[in-house]
Amino acid sequence: MATRTPSSPARGLPAAFVEELRALLGPRLSLAEAVRAQHGRDESRFAACLPDAVAYVDSTPEVAQAVAMCARHGVPVIPYGAGSSVEGQLIAVQGGLSLDLSGMNAVLALRPDELSATVQAGVTRKQLNEALKGTGLFFPVDPGADATLGGMCATRASGTAAVRYGTMRENVLGLTVVTATGEVFRQSSRARKSAAGYDLKSIFIGSEGTLGVITEVTVKLHPVPEAMSAAVVNFPSLSAAVATVIQALQMGVPVARSEYLDAANIRAINAYSKTQLPESDLLFFEFHGSPAAVEEHAKIVEDLAAQNGGRDFEWALHPEDRTRLWEARHTAFFALLQSRPGCRAVLTDTCVPISRLVDSITGARAILDASGLPCAIGGHVGDGNFHCAILVDPDSPAEVEEAEQLNARIVALAQAMDGTCSGEHGVGLHKIRYLAGEVGETGLALMRQLKHAFDPQNIMNPGKTIA
Amino acid sequence: MATRTPSSPARGLPAAFVEELRALLGPRLSLAEAVRAQHGRDESRFAACLPDAVAYVDSTPEVAQAVAMCARHGVPVIPYGAGSSVEGQLIAVQGGLSLDLSGMNAVLALRPDELSATVQAGVTRKQLNEALKGTGLFFPVDPGADATLGGMCATRASGTAAVRYGTMRENVLGLTVVTATGEVFRQSSRARKSAAGYDLKSIFIGSEGTLGVITEVTVKLHPVPEAMSAAVVNFPSLSAAVATVIQALQMGVPVARSEYLDAANIRAINAYSKTQLPESDLLFFEFHGSPAAVEEHAKIVEDLAAQNGGRDFEWALHPEDRTRLWEARHTAFFALLQSRPGCRAVLTDTCVPISRLVDSITGARAILDASGLPCAIGGHVGDGNFHCAILVDPDSPAEVEEAEQLNARIVALAQAMDGTCSGEHGVGLHKIRYLAGEVGETGLALMRQLKHAFDPQNIMNPGKTIA
Repeated sequence: MATRTPSSPARGLPAAFVEELRALLGPRLSLAEAVRAQHGRDESRFAACLPDAVAYVDSTPEVAQAVAMCARHGVPVIPYGAGSSVEGQLIAVQGGLSLDLSGMNAVLALRPDELSATVQAGVTRKQLNEALKGTGLFFPVDPGADATLGGMCATRASGTAAVRYGTMRENVLGLTVVTATGEVFRQSSRARKSAAGYDLKSIFIGSEGTLGVITEVTVKLHPVPEAMSAAVVNFPSLSAAVATVIQALQMGVPVARSEYLDAANIRAINAYSKTQLPESDLLFFEFHGSPAAVEEHAKIVEDLAAQNGGRDFEWALHPEDRTRLWEARHTAFFALLQSRPGCRAVLTDTCVPISRLVDSITGARAILDASGLPCAIGGHVGDGNFHCAILVDPDSPAEVEEAEQLNARIVALAQAMDGTCSGEHGVGLHKIRYLAGEVGETGLALMRQLKHAFDPQNIMNPGKTIA
Repeated sequence: MATRTPSSPARGLPAAFVEELRALLGPRLSLAEAVRAQHGRDESRFAACLPDAVAYVDSTPEVAQAVAMCARHGVPVIPYGAGSSVEGQLIAVQGGLSLDLSGMNAVLALRPDELSATVQAGVTRKQLNEALKGTGLFFPVDPGADATLGGMCATRASGTAAVRYGTMRENVLGLTVVTATGEVFRQSSRARKSAAGYDLKSIFIGSEGTLGVITEVTVKLHPVPEAMSAAVVNFPSLSAAVATVIQALQMGVPVARSEYLDAANIRAINAYSKTQLPESDLLFFEFHGSPAAVEEHAKIVEDLAAQNGGRDFEWALHPEDRTRLWEARHTAFFALLQSRPGCRAVLTDTCVPISRLVDSITGARAILDASGLPCAIGGHVGDGNFHCAILVDPDSPAEVEEAEQLNARIVALAQAMDGTCSGEHGVGLHKIRYLAGEVGETGLALMRQLKHAFDPQNIMNPGKTIA
């Protein structure tokens, strides 16, 4: 795996291609180094590799034309949204054209009566929820970063509320996609279920730009619950905290969010956000429903927490308290990065069957504790998904190598427990080598056949997802 | 489209193939006409086309060997489970080998702690729920027929409880699949979410045996709700009944089941099951949750029903009353077939965004009322999915043609409302011509590319799903 190296495009662009593209986009085509540098990296620890050009596109037909040009000239295409991916999805390892969809940020339709919305791919989740104010509806998928809906589809994102509302896989009703040849695939049906042929939508969700460019997304919306309550509880140990969540789920309590953060995370958050959270193993809970149901569920979980030694159950009943709580939780990643100036994070993203979560996360803790690198663990424990953030000096090959070895061991542990190397961040450049451990050589062969069928020239985000 | 014609295999099997397969299966390979006749039809109105042979397989490695033989000899493969498909999925239009998986009926693992189970593909949903007795868990997907789990995956089945628990798409954690070349793809991860590469599982769910043979299925289980209640309500009109459900969903009431049946259905059920249900537009409801939540939700829906003119709200609080209610509902299809001796049903399966359901279903009613053919409407209205059963004499080409024209008009109406031709029955032989109306020519081309990539010889259930 490449460590941080000086980066430059792998090769130049054909002059005829640049000319054609400039005729289409005018000043929205940029070859400027600073713009390319911004588009050749993401939040991963991978060194930037610059695309040869950046196209600021503004419509599906324009994306189709740009991709058709790339196909004719054999130029790689890397779709770009908010730049918040964490597994190297945006690193232009073969140069090519970064297709920046952030300007495609129109909310195309809000349909409160059918609980759906259609947006251009560059709309972010916060923007969508802002647009929904007053409708009594919200969009629940919340990966922390204010990612674009297109990017969230591309990485099959989930986050804090997936335990209750599902991931992007469960919340997308339809897509518009520009294929590798520049054709437009548009699914007109917005029915909530369908058995009408192959599940094309699911093929593109999680394909990380390697099969096509997602340009429009139709998502499910959910009624804002009548009542919501959030709480923080302080536990004597990681296993006590995690066991509380698992027991609640096994009892069928519809927990809306259940997030674990270790003391290292909390220390970083307190320093960054000026909060005074107790620096121990914490669980953040949220319950949604009718007032009676929320009360009932919160009571069950409070009892379970107490049985597991949970202390200082602190309720946040007012919207502003809840918001502050979740903002603190969402700053964890940036707070950690701030705790070691100049560092980057190597992130694990394993997800295991919930009955194996305590073993998996305590095993990961032991693996990390044997290393000298600063690290922290947090996760969406209701899904069986957790992240170890291992902070490295990106200019130290030894540190990066050590962190990658820790990641490899944590992945091996999860896969031995019938879990996955990636719960929600995707594969990118970072998890390719681990796929065989869960889908086997036959699964890899099927993935390669799919890739070749949909992108025979290998121009769609080459080098990502599947080698 | 072929109407009922005398049937025979399109061609014979190579002698060397039969010899090889007999060496593998011994007496579990049958060439008997009666066995082939049983496997060359389903519950659709399509005339039987017999496979050339039937293989009763009993393990994944055996399926792999049998399919590898078919691949070497270019013999079509048609996976067969309970024979309950309704769109012609089992009709052996090119002859070939029917692979009967009904003997692969072992429950391989029940994992109450992680809320999952793994079964061989021939296990039926009722068998699985029987095996779950005493665990406090159940498997909720309920298409009415006691289909096999493999078949339910293959058709992306859903049914009465999908509005609350999702369809097979949402309830399958992992699959084992024999590919068209006889390789075994097995996904080891049972994590509840994953972003680890292309969503192979979703590609096979709904592929109707045209991309591979599903041999094992890992499903999510759900805690049996603490409380359940069911009710029947009698409405003055179809639109009043449907509006009640839609309003409940728009308010966020987590209805567990909500089924509509028209007077024609109820008349047939009463005659067949000796029940005395009121012969008008009926809604069947079910609520799951804690006692307080169930009471709260039932009260809201009762009020909504009353506002829409619903009468005779009848509660079934005891398990045996609930069972009787749902058994009556599930007999609707067979009760209808009995109501016209010798008939077959042409079924529509449209599904529309819920805000369009009243228009879509009243539109279908008007289309049917203009025809002289006996018909009935019922459906999983919480999903926007409903079925018109049009009863035809299968020996009357004129009746079949008329019914197909009614189907075409009802599909066109649904697609004009951004709905789909198939909510849950799949495409089979019956809905192929309608796919372009919702995925366009580009979507069809992608489906063909996928089919060709996974099954280049076109031996997997040829002639189904995609032309």
